[in-house]
Amino acid sequence: MKGKLLYEGKAKQVFEVEGNDTHLILSYKNDATAFNGQKKAQFVGKGRYNNLISAKVFEFLKSKGVESHFERSLNDTEQFVQKTRIVPLEVIVRNIAAGSITRRIGIPEKTVFNPPLVELCYKNDAFGDPVINDDHALILTDITKEELDDIKATALTINEHLKEFFLGVDLTLADFKIEFGRNQEGAIILSDEVSPDTCRLWDTATGEKMDKDVFREDLGDLLDVYDKILKRLEAVQ
Amino acid sequence: MKGKLLYEGKAKQVFEVEGNDTHLILSYKNDATAFNGQKKAQFVGKGRYNNLISAKVFEFLKSKGVESHFERSLNDTEQFVQKTRIVPLEVIVRNIAAGSITRRIGIPEKTVFNPPLVELCYKNDAFGDPVINDDHALILTDITKEELDDIKATALTINEHLKEFFLGVDLTLADFKIEFGRNQEGAIILSDEVSPDTCRLWDTATGEKMDKDVFREDLGDLLDVYDKILKRLEAVQ
Repeated sequence: MKGKLLYEGKAKQVFEVEGNDTHLILSYKNDATAFNGQKKAQFVGKGRYNNLISAKVFEFLKSKGVESHFERSLNDTEQFVQKTRIVPLEVIVRNIAAGSITRRIGIPEKTVFNPPLVELCYKNDAFGDPVINDDHALILTDITKEELDDIKATALTINEHLKEFFLGVDLTLADFKIEFGRNQEGAIILSDEVSPDTCRLWDTATGEKMDKDVFREDLGDLLDVYDKILKRLEAVQ
Repeated sequence: MKGKLLYEGKAKQVFEVEGNDTHLILSYKNDATAFNGQKKAQFVGKGRYNNLISAKVFEFLKSKGVESHFERSLNDTEQFVQKTRIVPLEVIVRNIAAGSITRRIGIPEKTVFNPPLVELCYKNDAFGDPVINDDHALILTDITKEELDDIKATALTINEHLKEFFLGVDLTLADFKIEFGRNQEGAIILSDEVSPDTCRLWDTATGEKMDKDVFREDLGDLLDVYDKILKRLEAVQ
């Protein structure tokens, strides 16, 4: 069923599906990268955690009416997804200041954004995924102004759902990054992944960081943290 | 009449006016800086050119109904201006791609923006004046959403007037940076300066760069170029 490798990113491989023009297979890798690829490591088992956690997130969002590329998990590390052409934007939603925004414009860590802050970055490794504004986005992508407005509104809706989802397992969602893609019908839908690699999740009781910052900042055992998240999610279902 | 020095920036000094709470004296310096202050030099006479050219621009804009802080020139290097509290934004309008936008997001030099592109940067030397979006601007300044929309619309109006103004002396306006300030009545008006230090001006016939890029890129005699601009402006009046 799995066809040839179409693309290999930092965290996933993308495969064709033989005899199927509308779907792809995403294979989650064990690699962790940070700071635009400057820091790298391998964690055997990480791909499984991100696949299983991301699947739970996509299923929850579907139950809330948010369409994504996710169809179903195939095994421990692979997902069967709609084929989309990725819009080269990283859409970041911030509830609480952390990471790049504190270094780039000096907003103190833990500043609460009310309403949540939406940031766009141009998804381009050669330029280091720079922050851009809406007008840049319209120049750098093929989306229309209306589609961009929809993407930003959808990102804020997803934020509300994800806050609820993670709070149900005692995790506070500080921020997250999502990507959108255009499917075969021309609709723009949530794509890529939603996992502790792409969300900042803080234990609601202790404030402990339970996401890729554990790797970025050398705070402890990344796999142990991802295992805790998966176990919490499995316990509530 | 000139009171104490209130503030010294890279290109200007700001003085109190004795017995006057509503106005300031701006004194244009001979310093040239580029790349966030990493490149510096002195050009004796540059302050005079920027003062006289900026005065002509502000007078032209006033004739078109665009209010600014400019009241009158006092001498070769000084202007009498309304006291404003500067909004910490650099508002950039781009007609043709040049400079930072080519390096930051890879838009090829000389790409024409139609409509013109408005960029906001956070005016903060410690962070290198980073590009921000509208939501960042509302967090980092005390302006309202309506005031920000006004600033951006006014910047585009100013662009149309400046294109006409410079085209009248055979100069193509590729881009420019302006700043706004809040005056004593609470209104937000055009402040700072508009000069070859803050505009990219290309000779319409030859394409020759006739602005601070001559200094940034070591293209020739900066004072000679600024002198040509002033002489062209004087010749049409």
